[in-house]
Amino acid sequence: RKQGYQLQFASQEEKQEFSKFPTKTGRRSLSRSISQSSTDSYSSAASYTDSSDDETSPREKTQVNSKGSSDFCVKNVKQAEFGRREIEIAEQDMSALISLRKRAQGEKPLAGAKVVGCTHITAQTAVLIETLVALGAQCRWAACNIYSTQNEVAAALAETGVAVFAWKGESEDDFWWCIDRCVNTECWQANMILDDGGDLTHWVYKKYPSVFKKVRGIVEESVTGVHRLYQLSKAGKLCVPAMNVNDSVTKQKFDNLYCCRESILDGLKRTTDVMFGGKQVVVCGYGEVGKGCCTALKALGAIVCVTEIDPICALQACMDGFKVVKLNEVVRQVDMVITCTGNKNVVTREQLDRMKNGCIVCNMGHSNTEIDVASLRTPELTWERVRSQVDHVIWPDGKRVILLAEGRLLNLSCSTVPSFVLSITATTQALALIELYNAPDGRYRQDVYLLPKKMDEYVASLHLPNFDAHLTELSDEQAKYMGLNKNGPFKPNYYR
Amino acid sequence: RKQGYQLQFASQEEKQEFSKFPTKTGRRSLSRSISQSSTDSYSSAASYTDSSDDETSPREKTQVNSKGSSDFCVKNVKQAEFGRREIEIAEQDMSALISLRKRAQGEKPLAGAKVVGCTHITAQTAVLIETLVALGAQCRWAACNIYSTQNEVAAALAETGVAVFAWKGESEDDFWWCIDRCVNTECWQANMILDDGGDLTHWVYKKYPSVFKKVRGIVEESVTGVHRLYQLSKAGKLCVPAMNVNDSVTKQKFDNLYCCRESILDGLKRTTDVMFGGKQVVVCGYGEVGKGCCTALKALGAIVCVTEIDPICALQACMDGFKVVKLNEVVRQVDMVITCTGNKNVVTREQLDRMKNGCIVCNMGHSNTEIDVASLRTPELTWERVRSQVDHVIWPDGKRVILLAEGRLLNLSCSTVPSFVLSITATTQALALIELYNAPDGRYRQDVYLLPKKMDEYVASLHLPNFDAHLTELSDEQAKYMGLNKNGPFKPNYYR
Amino acid sequence: RKQGYQLQFASQEEKQEFSKFPTKTGRRSLSRSISQSSTDSYSSAASYTDSSDDETSPREKTQVNSKGSSDFCVKNVKQAEFGRREIEIAEQDMSALISLRKRAQGEKPLAGAKVVGCTHITAQTAVLIETLVALGAQCRWAACNIYSTQNEVAAALAETGVAVFAWKGESEDDFWWCIDRCVNTECWQANMILDDGGDLTHWVYKKYPSVFKKVRGIVEESVTGVHRLYQLSKAGKLCVPAMNVNDSVTKQKFDNLYCCRESILDGLKRTTDVMFGGKQVVVCGYGEVGKGCCTALKALGAIVCVTEIDPICALQACMDGFKVVKLNEVVRQVDMVITCTGNKNVVTREQLDRMKNGCIVCNMGHSNTEIDVASLRTPELTWERVRSQVDHVIWPDGKRVILLAEGRLLNLSCSTVPSFVLSITATTQALALIELYNAPDGRYRQDVYLLPKKMDEYVASLHLPNFDAHLTELSDEQAKYMGLNKNGPFKPNYYR
Amino acid sequence: RKQGYQLQFASQEEKQEFSKFPTKTGRRSLSRSISQSSTDSYSSAASYTDSSDDETSPREKTQVNSKGSSDFCVKNVKQAEFGRREIEIAEQDMSALISLRKRAQGEKPLAGAKVVGCTHITAQTAVLIETLVALGAQCRWAACNIYSTQNEVAAALAETGVAVFAWKGESEDDFWWCIDRCVNTECWQANMILDDGGDLTHWVYKKYPSVFKKVRGIVEESVTGVHRLYQLSKAGKLCVPAMNVNDSVTKQKFDNLYCCRESILDGLKRTTDVMFGGKQVVVCGYGEVGKGCCTALKALGAIVCVTEIDPICALQACMDGFKVVKLNEVVRQVDMVITCTGNKNVVTREQLDRMKNGCIVCNMGHSNTEIDVASLRTPELTWERVRSQVDHVIWPDGKRVILLAEGRLLNLSCSTVPSFVLSITATTQALALIELYNAPDGRYRQDVYLLPKKMDEYVASLHLPNFDAHLTELSDEQAKYMGLNKNGPFKPNYYR
Repeated sequence: RKQGYQLQFASQEEKQEFSKFPTKTGRRSLSRSISQSSTDSYSSAASYTDSSDDETSPREKTQVNSKGSSDFCVKNVKQAEFGRREIEIAEQDMSALISLRKRAQGEKPLAGAKVVGCTHITAQTAVLIETLVALGAQCRWAACNIYSTQNEVAAALAETGVAVFAWKGESEDDFWWCIDRCVNTECWQANMILDDGGDLTHWVYKKYPSVFKKVRGIVEESVTGVHRLYQLSKAGKLCVPAMNVNDSVTKQKFDNLYCCRESILDGLKRTTDVMFGGKQVVVCGYGEVGKGCCTALKALGAIVCVTEIDPICALQACMDGFKVVKLNEVVRQVDMVITCTGNKNVVTREQLDRMKNGCIVCNMGHSNTEIDVASLRTPELTWERVRSQVDHVIWPDGKRVILLAEGRLLNLSCSTVPSFVLSITATTQALALIELYNAPDGRYRQDVYLLPKKMDEYVASLHLPNFDAHLTELSDEQAKYMGLNKNGPFKPNYYR
Repeated sequence: RKQGYQLQFASQEEKQEFSKFPTKTGRRSLSRSISQSSTDSYSSAASYTDSSDDETSPREKTQVNSKGSSDFCVKNVKQAEFGRREIEIAEQDMSALISLRKRAQGEKPLAGAKVVGCTHITAQTAVLIETLVALGAQCRWAACNIYSTQNEVAAALAETGVAVFAWKGESEDDFWWCIDRCVNTECWQANMILDDGGDLTHWVYKKYPSVFKKVRGIVEESVTGVHRLYQLSKAGKLCVPAMNVNDSVTKQKFDNLYCCRESILDGLKRTTDVMFGGKQVVVCGYGEVGKGCCTALKALGAIVCVTEIDPICALQACMDGFKVVKLNEVVRQVDMVITCTGNKNVVTREQLDRMKNGCIVCNMGHSNTEIDVASLRTPELTWERVRSQVDHVIWPDGKRVILLAEGRLLNLSCSTVPSFVLSITATTQALALIELYNAPDGRYRQDVYLLPKKMDEYVASLHLPNFDAHLTELSDEQAKYMGLNKNGPFKPNYYR
Repeated sequence: RKQGYQLQFASQEEKQEFSKFPTKTGRRSLSRSISQSSTDSYSSAASYTDSSDDETSPREKTQVNSKGSSDFCVKNVKQAEFGRREIEIAEQDMSALISLRKRAQGEKPLAGAKVVGCTHITAQTAVLIETLVALGAQCRWAACNIYSTQNEVAAALAETGVAVFAWKGESEDDFWWCIDRCVNTECWQANMILDDGGDLTHWVYKKYPSVFKKVRGIVEESVTGVHRLYQLSKAGKLCVPAMNVNDSVTKQKFDNLYCCRESILDGLKRTTDVMFGGKQVVVCGYGEVGKGCCTALKALGAIVCVTEIDPICALQACMDGFKVVKLNEVVRQVDMVITCTGNKNVVTREQLDRMKNGCIVCNMGHSNTEIDVASLRTPELTWERVRSQVDHVIWPDGKRVILLAEGRLLNLSCSTVPSFVLSITATTQALALIELYNAPDGRYRQDVYLLPKKMDEYVASLHLPNFDAHLTELSDEQAKYMGLNKNGPFKPNYYR
Repeated sequence: RKQGYQLQFASQEEKQEFSKFPTKTGRRSLSRSISQSSTDSYSSAASYTDSSDDETSPREKTQVNSKGSSDFCVKNVKQAEFGRREIEIAEQDMSALISLRKRAQGEKPLAGAKVVGCTHITAQTAVLIETLVALGAQCRWAACNIYSTQNEVAAALAETGVAVFAWKGESEDDFWWCIDRCVNTECWQANMILDDGGDLTHWVYKKYPSVFKKVRGIVEESVTGVHRLYQLSKAGKLCVPAMNVNDSVTKQKFDNLYCCRESILDGLKRTTDVMFGGKQVVVCGYGEVGKGCCTALKALGAIVCVTEIDPICALQACMDGFKVVKLNEVVRQVDMVITCTGNKNVVTREQLDRMKNGCIVCNMGHSNTEIDVASLRTPELTWERVRSQVDHVIWPDGKRVILLAEGRLLNLSCSTVPSFVLSITATTQALALIELYNAPDGRYRQDVYLLPKKMDEYVASLHLPNFDAHLTELSDEQAKYMGLNKNGPFKPNYYR
């Protein structure tokens, strides 16, 4: 039955409901996680194997790994060795996970856990999945995005016995088929869900309500998925405790401030080769993302000014040495406009009309509506694709505006996310699974939780050896004086 | 009666209770406000008038201002013109208060308010007091610290008719006498309290309970005073709404991150003339204060490493480019040790023993116990006072450790606080008074409140013109998209 | 005859002499110009047209441009339109050249000049060549590197009538054939030489001594070419004045300090996706290149230390906040080793043996011998090519060292050079040509000259409008006080 | 005769010639050394002993040191112990000199040298003088400035036997008397001159030509003194080799770039307590001094723009992230104007008229004419001295401009120079004396010389231990490859 399964959608409407769901969700928060690429295009800089000339759908093929199992569906299991190399490279920057693996391996804290997962399938995810397995879990996995799977990594996972159902370039039908294959299997019933975007959770909730009820916990990484969970919870339909790992401190700081500080430079260089020194730049928004962008550009010699709606952030920008302006005041002179607001229509057609020739426009914020790209798709303007992810939009007088990634997230489209950053997310996910799976009855109810501060601190502490950083320990006397436990937590929950 | 008043303490014990009170209070929080100088020595860089040779106590003298009033007690009312100049200079950097004065002057939002205040009496405070008067309030004022009064400023206030009772070098008896003179007066009963340290509040609470019950609100600035209020509240004895302005975002960021970024350099230069370039420095603690110190020292070419107990802050230090070490690992090599922890015995005698000749040790943290200075007061060590606030502690082998301000707060003892920073605090205090005085019944109960986010944002917005910063306004469409009111608040209350 | 020309080498020895020549030249100076890619591999990020499947040698094909001329030899003249677009994009960042074009167009200062050139043939060079033409020159051009030609750009030049002989992937025989076709033509005799690397100059000197004698000037950009010229001059064989544009101040600062500040980040990201924050890095050499690398890495949160042989540079590193160490002291702990010395064997096999797993090693210095890469090609080590320009060298115990570009220049191999930097070089070249062509008899003798300071300043001034920078003019009184001419030069010749 | 000596000026004219001399000299170079304070006021932050109430002129008193000598003239030899402490403190940051003392002490390279010196007499100079003595020299010393002598230090020197003639507050007559007492003494004839400003040199040249002819060398530190020497040399009257230590690389970089980076902040804070964060600043001139100021202010959150006359420096400013403007474009908006040009009337009365209320104006450049202060001394403007070195200049409409140090050098007037910087100068002076004293005949002729590069490098190397910096040594193979001597010099003489 497994092999011949045909996905039966309840109705066309339901299918559309699923697929449209992400666009309905709240966009307010500016936390940008890799998972948001669900709705953005995804450019994996690390894909060395082409989709090749083999056009057969993986669903049509029968493949067997070296152990005789065929409980998986990937592009080509023979690429396993190549994928293994990729995983090993990723492991070098994810030593926190490896160290978690080692520390908890004896206890097998996930023994008995049956984890069904739905995430990007990349070398970094593979390190996470193999950590879960090492801690005792059984895993079945699908991709949360139809483009982002590294086929060779999926092959390597399949080869080692993980039931993975994913390939690069799935159709929408394939997408749901893969998810279903993870859940709907004989002799195996998921008791933990690890999700990125909420599609898996929704599928189980809708299609397998009896499974859903018996799940011990859900770990969700994305803004979108977290939003869905809060909606379920509000509606009284969340019968399972869920952990929101998106809003953990370490993830937020790394995904936003520190990661953007590097990816703004990387994204701009890879697409335009622009020289930063002396360039006049306006950054719209001075939240964590904006702060990261401003810091990096200023450090490399750009002259940066900032727009803000919030007087507190505006005052911070002043104190950090950035002139706070309205976009209209500077739009004629600047060499680059970078949006980091989480809002929409921050850069309007009118403002695009007033930019000077050669101005670069890109988005580091949340959705692809920060720049009003739609307004540029009019007959009088000519679009010229000069490179991958780079369009020249040409005005009748010959003026060119250089638009990157069609206004989608620059750092997801045009740069890469370091394994180290993904390690923080993956470690948090692993700890959240362990916590929910082992928590005594009553600790968590049917609600959405933030990771306890202490576990946030634990994630951080696992990453310190990467930097050869040595933590100081409180003496008993000091701990007493401060009213703290020597092992933390050290800060209140609201600390950022 | 006014002139001949003799303070009657209920008993010697009660008096001691008052004076010891500050030392009992909680020390945990690392927020350092100017008000903490209550327990530290205070160095006013801006005092141009000596205590002079006139040794008569102000309480003995009869002075009359040019309007014929003698309802005040200052050193010498004839210094008023000199003080006026100081106030005018301060006004230049406190334009937010002046602007508040102008905006609200027509409405007189404090008409009818009778404000009794107890703060440092400096040019900056004078700008605050005169703003309150301009908004309709009547004010009576005492000093919260026996050393910090600028006599000429007190004279200028007295000259314009403020009932001010303060001079530099009060005795403890003088201190309580002045406070009492503010409260205990015919035909005038305070209905608002503005306090810094909690001494005034406590005096009214203990001595004039009937006055206390009719007060409409208390505004408290200091950590210590806020702590006392929370204790009163916990004990069910706080019958008045109180506003904790110490923990407002703008104040915190300015007092800690931005202000320390500058004062660490200033304090070190004024005391030691040390060259920063190439110096090896260890900063203990990477909270806001530590972040400010590290940023500044690194920017000027010092090689900075950090100690931390909290893995999250440690990880931030790593990402910001500071090596995280244990103090013991580096104490032999470093040229400076700076404490910013809020903890005690962060630098121990054993570590002081291991420092190299010429090492500079100072404290930017909370209390004067971060460095174990007491352990240095032993017979085998020689102390040599080489400048004001600078001691050489000399080991038997000739090694010298350079200790600044005897371990008290460097930035309060050895540098100055810019008027701009004080403007933020003063504006917050003024707004808190207006809010409490005008709030409809029921908005505030008998509890301690944080300033509403929106007012925090208002304080920030009043300071933006200083930087010629132009705020962007949300369009209706954008506000709706973000789910925000166009006028704010723009961030959740917990935002930092 | 043109079409059917067959290159006759005097002898096989002579041919070899030419081709080996570059490797004989001095390597001491650390100035790195794009022209050094002659001996390095060249990665053009901007090549959009493949060598395609057309395997016919351009020499075999007969092509005619739209004006009926066939005096050129390129891959495919039909790509001209595509190349034109590339040139237009480059023009946007090379406005100094365009502005020079406009200023001098009336006077046609190169009227009558017959310039034979040999440089990389890229969009940026095309802007230079078309500027020379606009100023009155006739040009014939060959490529100075067999890999670096952008075919579509060559096509665009051919289409507009420039006699260009170049394509990507020339054989060595092709290389010299192309050069010869530029010089050896009827009815046209070169009177100016613009060279990058010295191959063209040498060819004319050896093959066409009568042409050589009548040349009015040589402009040479590369270290190598300049070295050859000084040798000729020393040997008394240089019968033509030559301009060394490699050592002009603007070029040096841009090629080294400012350009490396950006390209070190770009090169590392494109090859390894490494996160900079918190990484421990050692930079060998603190000259201009090292200063640029250190500044950028520190700004992005890396912890950087430096090795130096020169105490003055070492002291500068100290004052700039970098610990000065010996490589052996830190080689076990660091995450990256970057060489910028101009010396050889700066990183030895012994040191490579001691590096930790995952250490990245790369070269920003002069030649590919700074890292002793040869020592890594031994049987016990496994090389694994993981990406283009990225090798993992694997020790028997599994340790991997990540070697970039096989030790060749990272910024030439793995990042791009901004048009703006190339604009500075190209403008300098154009001015040098104008100066030599128009100089009155006697101003220049048969020697190698540096660009006069004043022209260096003129090049800089032409680039200021890119930054909307406004220069202040001296008043007569001020000029007199300073003893300066109001129009410069403003600094002594030795100023850096 | 010694005691009763009365200085006989040849004529009043000659005296005036001496005293006016400094104002005649060239002002072009922007090197600012401590020695320029000759013409500026000098504020010694380290003077702990008052001129006291003893109003007797030192010339009237007979003092004897503990060894029975009275060959000196200081304020009060009894302050020797206090001065000794000051010297010991200075020694801690001048370990290069101490190390030179140790290295060369056995050889006594100055045995037989009779050094007459004329410099500021401070603790740092004392370390130099005592080093010379330790190396074998006999010294006689006068002050080069009538205000800058630290009396207690002079006392300490007198106590140990140095023939020092100097006190704080000399009259002009005293000044020349002291110099004469150093030169004109029985049984002792100077054979080396160490001068700062050229007054001593000139005195010997004019008054004691026979002594002058037998001098083996002159070491001169100041711009002014060096200028005088070049004039003498030009006029063919310099019959002695002289060493210009003002233009050595290490001195220049430290006095300008690194030292100003710190002193601009220090000077502004001590005088105005201004907050740097968010302040708009214009720095006039982007040479080494301007670069130092800009770097520091930007790092602390100021928004800095630059004016320049030289396009090369302007382009550097652009690349470093500073907008290049004309002063007139920004003078209305900025919060501070800082001059660093070496030119005059850089800030004119017209521009001062247009500044906004509260604008701070100060000079870090060469002379006190960069700001046209003279133009402010007009009846319609009121000057108000608000602190030492701080004037408010008040316009009729009440606008105040805050002028620091009356336009004289801010860093000399209002901040201190770290001992470390003075150590570099002093070490250079000592080496220059050794070199000239021991040079074989013929190495130096009757001309002005720069310190050989190698000795510059030696000075730098002596200061590296302060930073625990470890220099790398070239291998033989590497030295050969680079064409260098393993011990240096490593850079050409023109290297900066």
